Amino acid sequence: MAAAVGRTLSGLIAIVMVMAYLAKGEREEKLRVYMHATMLYKNVTFNTEAVVVQKSPGMSSAAASFGEMHVVDNPLTNGRSLTSSQVGSAQGVYAYCSRSNVAAWWSFTAFLDGRGTVIVMGVEQIIGSSFPRVLSVVGGTGDFANARGSVLFNTTAFKFPTFYVVSLDFTLLLPS
Amino acid sequence: MAAAVGRTLSGLIAIVMVMAYLAKGEREEKLRVYMHATMLYKNVTFNTEAVVVQKSPGMSSAAASFGEMHVVDNPLTNGRSLTSSQVGSAQGVYAYCSRSNVAAWWSFTAFLDGRGTVIVMGVEQIIGSSFPRVLSVVGGTGDFANARGSVLFNTTAFKFPTFYVVSLDFTLLLPS
Amino acid sequence: MAAAVGRTLSGLIAIVMVMAYLAKGEREEKLRVYMHATMLYKNVTFNTEAVVVQKSPGMSSAAASFGEMHVVDNPLTNGRSLTSSQVGSAQGVYAYCSRSNVAAWWSFTAFLDGRGTVIVMGVEQIIGSSFPRVLSVVGGTGDFANARGSVLFNTTAFKFPTFYVVSLDFTLLLPS
Repeated sequence: MAAAVGRTLSGLIAIVMVMAYLAKGEREEKLRVYMHATMLYKNVTFNTEAVVVQKSPGMSSAAASFGEMHVVDNPLTNGRSLTSSQVGSAQGVYAYCSRSNVAAWWSFTAFLDGRGTVIVMGVEQIIGSSFPRVLSVVGGTGDFANARGSVLFNTTAFKFPTFYVVSLDFTLLLPS
Repeated sequence: MAAAVGRTLSGLIAIVMVMAYLAKGEREEKLRVYMHATMLYKNVTFNTEAVVVQKSPGMSSAAASFGEMHVVDNPLTNGRSLTSSQVGSAQGVYAYCSRSNVAAWWSFTAFLDGRGTVIVMGVEQIIGSSFPRVLSVVGGTGDFANARGSVLFNTTAFKFPTFYVVSLDFTLLLPS
Repeated sequence: MAAAVGRTLSGLIAIVMVMAYLAKGEREEKLRVYMHATMLYKNVTFNTEAVVVQKSPGMSSAAASFGEMHVVDNPLTNGRSLTSSQVGSAQGVYAYCSRSNVAAWWSFTAFLDGRGTVIVMGVEQIIGSSFPRVLSVVGGTGDFANARGSVLFNTTAFKFPTFYVVSLDFTLLLPS
């Protein structure tokens, strides 16, 4: 009988562990893409960003670009080069939101073709802050439904005022 | 004694299942409302949308409305008609965010009278994309505190440029 | 043997409870800071807000400020006074989003020095609504990674059009 109880308990422990795992309910996925912004301004056909408001009225010139707002439709690729495979696009809005440093408030959706979307929100401290360039993943659709997590921004190429390339390193928590 | 152990184990299994359910901690609620936008522009008194920026400077005319930004305070009803019972309102912002298709980046709060708010973020692919018109629920208050989930957009009526009606089908995950 | 089974069951119940707690996976943290907005407009050097669009074209004057959009970089302090210790800043965007009341759609990141960021989204019903002034926490970074929760707004000082002070009472759910 003791053996039977032992077997039952072992089975029960296994059930509990599976239940706890399912209850915890999250698995991690890491993902890197590169975001390409083209801002030629003059040759507007190729622009991937629309400047909603270029200058806020009455702001100090010291506050670099504070209040400037952009709408973006930026290609996402799997390599550093714009000619590498396009895997999706980033659509949304950013605004320069620092009076003393260079920082961008972002609200955008990363479309990843064939998989779904990852929804990002936060402020990217680009220059002059000790905070890391990390934003939050606050949701998603498709494969990424109800995703949470973070995304690290890192500039891999930049030529003012024509383009910038930023690597986006996602760490996603997905319901299992 | 074996019977006593059996009863204890049965009881324990029940406790474990309840605990796992509570730990999982989410219940689902489905909810449909209709959002009504009035954009007469000329007869502004009845407008439910404020156009923040109507044209982005220097963008290609091919990029339909790219960069145009709206603030909305749209009625939500429980039926397709604007004269059906109003159950709340949708307040927030959208911007046209596609260079090639018609898509809208949204960030808004759905107020549902007597219950609380549901907070929505994402990009709605209206025309020309293979992505479904699904956005994310990223939060909420009141009955919908800490909600997650999704919302499907579907146009039920449209007359350019005066109004559109969109059904919003929410699938909410709520902490139990 | 019965005693042995009893001890095993007691141990198992303890394991289950710990697992369920870990699975639930959240601890609560409460946090209060004060947000200071300076809007002198004329003496722009000290402004903590950039007005992106001051008036929406063609809106009824009855719709007070409907469509007006601001970018903010507001100091956060641990006391009511602007001269109390600064503990961070709030960077992001708001827009007046009500046709009949005074309400503000917000999307901002609260930087809390040395700890991380809390990401807030929602609509603040300032005047004329029965909804409480509660917004959602939809994410975070650093100590606040993957935070959820709510934040209650309460105006503690106001002098139109030069400044306002708002207490922000956060109730955060953090993964354990």
